Amino acid sequence: MILITGASSGLGAALAKCYSDDNQQVIISGRNTRRLDAIAQALGANTCAITADLTSDASVSALFDQVEQAQQKQQVQQAPSRLHTVIHCAGSGYFGAIETQNPAAIAELLQNNIMSAIMLVREAVKRYRDQAVNVVVVMSTAAQSAKAGESTYCAAKWAVRGFIESVRLELKGSPMKIIAVYPGGMDTGFWPTSGKALDTSSFMSALEAADMLKHALVSTQHGYVADITINRA
Amino acid sequence: MILITGASSGLGAALAKCYSDDNQQVIISGRNTRRLDAIAQALGANTCAITADLTSDASVSALFDQVEQAQQKQQVQQAPSRLHTVIHCAGSGYFGAIETQNPAAIAELLQNNIMSAIMLVREAVKRYRDQAVNVVVVMSTAAQSAKAGESTYCAAKWAVRGFIESVRLELKGSPMKIIAVYPGGMDTGFWPTSGKALDTSSFMSALEAADMLKHALVSTQHGYVADITINRA
Amino acid sequence: MILITGASSGLGAALAKCYSDDNQQVIISGRNTRRLDAIAQALGANTCAITADLTSDASVSALFDQVEQAQQKQQVQQAPSRLHTVIHCAGSGYFGAIETQNPAAIAELLQNNIMSAIMLVREAVKRYRDQAVNVVVVMSTAAQSAKAGESTYCAAKWAVRGFIESVRLELKGSPMKIIAVYPGGMDTGFWPTSGKALDTSSFMSALEAADMLKHALVSTQHGYVADITINRA
Amino acid sequence: MILITGASSGLGAALAKCYSDDNQQVIISGRNTRRLDAIAQALGANTCAITADLTSDASVSALFDQVEQAQQKQQVQQAPSRLHTVIHCAGSGYFGAIETQNPAAIAELLQNNIMSAIMLVREAVKRYRDQAVNVVVVMSTAAQSAKAGESTYCAAKWAVRGFIESVRLELKGSPMKIIAVYPGGMDTGFWPTSGKALDTSSFMSALEAADMLKHALVSTQHGYVADITINRA
Repeated sequence: MILITGASSGLGAALAKCYSDDNQQVIISGRNTRRLDAIAQALGANTCAITADLTSDASVSALFDQVEQAQQKQQVQQAPSRLHTVIHCAGSGYFGAIETQNPAAIAELLQNNIMSAIMLVREAVKRYRDQAVNVVVVMSTAAQSAKAGESTYCAAKWAVRGFIESVRLELKGSPMKIIAVYPGGMDTGFWPTSGKALDTSSFMSALEAADMLKHALVSTQHGYVADITINRA
Repeated sequence: MILITGASSGLGAALAKCYSDDNQQVIISGRNTRRLDAIAQALGANTCAITADLTSDASVSALFDQVEQAQQKQQVQQAPSRLHTVIHCAGSGYFGAIETQNPAAIAELLQNNIMSAIMLVREAVKRYRDQAVNVVVVMSTAAQSAKAGESTYCAAKWAVRGFIESVRLELKGSPMKIIAVYPGGMDTGFWPTSGKALDTSSFMSALEAADMLKHALVSTQHGYVADITINRA
Repeated sequence: MILITGASSGLGAALAKCYSDDNQQVIISGRNTRRLDAIAQALGANTCAITADLTSDASVSALFDQVEQAQQKQQVQQAPSRLHTVIHCAGSGYFGAIETQNPAAIAELLQNNIMSAIMLVREAVKRYRDQAVNVVVVMSTAAQSAKAGESTYCAAKWAVRGFIESVRLELKGSPMKIIAVYPGGMDTGFWPTSGKALDTSSFMSALEAADMLKHALVSTQHGYVADITINRA
Repeated sequence: MILITGASSGLGAALAKCYSDDNQQVIISGRNTRRLDAIAQALGANTCAITADLTSDASVSALFDQVEQAQQKQQVQQAPSRLHTVIHCAGSGYFGAIETQNPAAIAELLQNNIMSAIMLVREAVKRYRDQAVNVVVVMSTAAQSAKAGESTYCAAKWAVRGFIESVRLELKGSPMKIIAVYPGGMDTGFWPTSGKALDTSSFMSALEAADMLKHALVSTQHGYVADITINRA
């Protein structure tokens, strides 16, 4: 069983489709129940939707409770299906020269990207640190370099990177692994909602990125792919 | 004239003392009016205190309005005294293994460190991007590496670093400069309030660090010291 | 057609096996003709061996000449087989506290790791910068962090990283791509020859790492996996 | 007593002048005896010149032997003068798109920058790791980021950075400190000899950079400035 956050659009929705097409049990999560349900319905019986606000620890905890209930129900009905992977895609963008950025929008950006990642990883560590669960945290190439016009977005993404690199040190020797993913810009609904006008027609589609990510997320008995950067060609 | 934030304790207060002893006009800011006033009084006539909540853009804007009023008043009374340096020391610490950290305390940590730095730099850029103003942003060595037991603190500090590195790109060619300072742990009140029990008796004192920083903050006609890491011996 | 350097042992030899098993045309290269021939023979008809000293530009140029001849011969005999991927695995290790390291061994380490990577990438760029050729440069997690006891090895690996990150900027807009790979320690002959005594029985085998890398090296029309870190579990 | 390498021109020569003007005992080193002697003569009685080829461990060892002899002679004649600081400025530049770079010039660049830094630091650690000696390693902003047209220069500088960051870990708890300095481009003879045509008239002069560096190299009982980046204004 795979839990995907931020799955109501973009890379999250595309990953849900990839894994669902592969006949895996997929739980998709997001804040927008209507959009989420539409996606779950389109994907079929092996997908279920759970609405959650990841910036709230209570909502994150409730999400994992529901995941565990779904897991148990699954195990009764058919072959055992343990939650082995969480892919955290939730996040939002906000851009512009710093002097033009709006304080409320900045605060929301930090919540959507930093607080949500912290709450999600914190709950996963609380529940699964002694289990072989992979927590895949999708950030952005903006977590790896500074960018003019993206100062607060870089702040948010660098924060998540500093956070997970530190949690990795805390998980040393634990079977739980954190996998860091840094995708470049994709041709998704992300840009229109971020306020940045861009011609993204030559960008990779969310499905292209999802397909690459699914292939690259491999592990063996003694090792695993821990960091993945996906660039535009 | 120098504006120092987070000046009611620790490195900020020590820097205020160093610059005040050097007969510079110093404006100290912090959230705790009582502590701030006590420090201003101890330092003497060239120091004045302005209370501000840096997580609020309105409060940051009011702070700079008051700085500019103080500046004008100063210029009437005596030799001209232009605001040439802002040293941002405000911040707080919060530590512990991620599964033991409290969501409300995490949210407060992010506000105190990320939102305050963004609001301060944003207002400074709005007002002074075409002036020779140095904005010195004091972070921590936690902005440069990951640390077990400091995951959310690293998140906060990496965020500030990613933010200022990006704003630097936006300021290319501008006379305003951003200087990044990364001090190691000091023997200050920071640790008791952070919840981390440490023997800090061999750490550098805030005055030692302030003295080093004051010496290292140099510039010439064509160059300036842009990044400074201060380590424990 | 795939060219693999450093293929007479370790990850290079394991990758040769993976791609050969997958019925790809594989050219393996190394300095030790005898070992190289033994591997080529073990792998079968779709593999051929070309001895080369990558620290010499003449030898690197001769290697690519032979690759192109093999390519043409291949195209006459059967389906066209263009060189689409170069995987650079060549390198060596040398460890110890800096004051115990031997100058001649240090010089050899730098040659084996830095000069070879520069010569190989330089020749590839000269020949193929306008073609869709992927140059996969295998480094080490020692290229991503500092390590006590590995100072000159880190020097060598950081050098290669700084080099390829810069060449990437020069290749902007070119169909040639450079892919950076950072594997953690593997259970190979690398350690005995490096002078570092380690129990590597829990490390991933070269075949495990090769298998993961082969899966993770994916690309689509508009994007590609550009950086891959493979950690020990 | 201060030892400055690469002191026959540029930043090294400027630092020699700054410290000599400050009445410190200065030993300058370089490969060109004639230029070195001319500088020593211009600077006066507190400066002496020792020719050395830092890429040779025998020559580096001989250099430190002569420094120790000079130290003893000094201590007989007047006030004790212990070697407390080594400033390593030696290095050279070589630029251009990778496909245009010459293999012999690349090899020389790596020797001049990487091998010299390793040999110098190695010898200093061998002799002084239990003494309060500061080894200041001057690199370049090219050690901190990738640059098109500077791929092999970045390789060399990233190597030195990876090296000293690792040696720092080996020196943990030792009174010997390594200080890392990253200056931006200066208006010196470096550029004409590097083959890069640049208008450097607005760059900082070597004396400006030397003056800033001298101020920024501060330490106290419990701390020290460990990393310094000097940017162009």
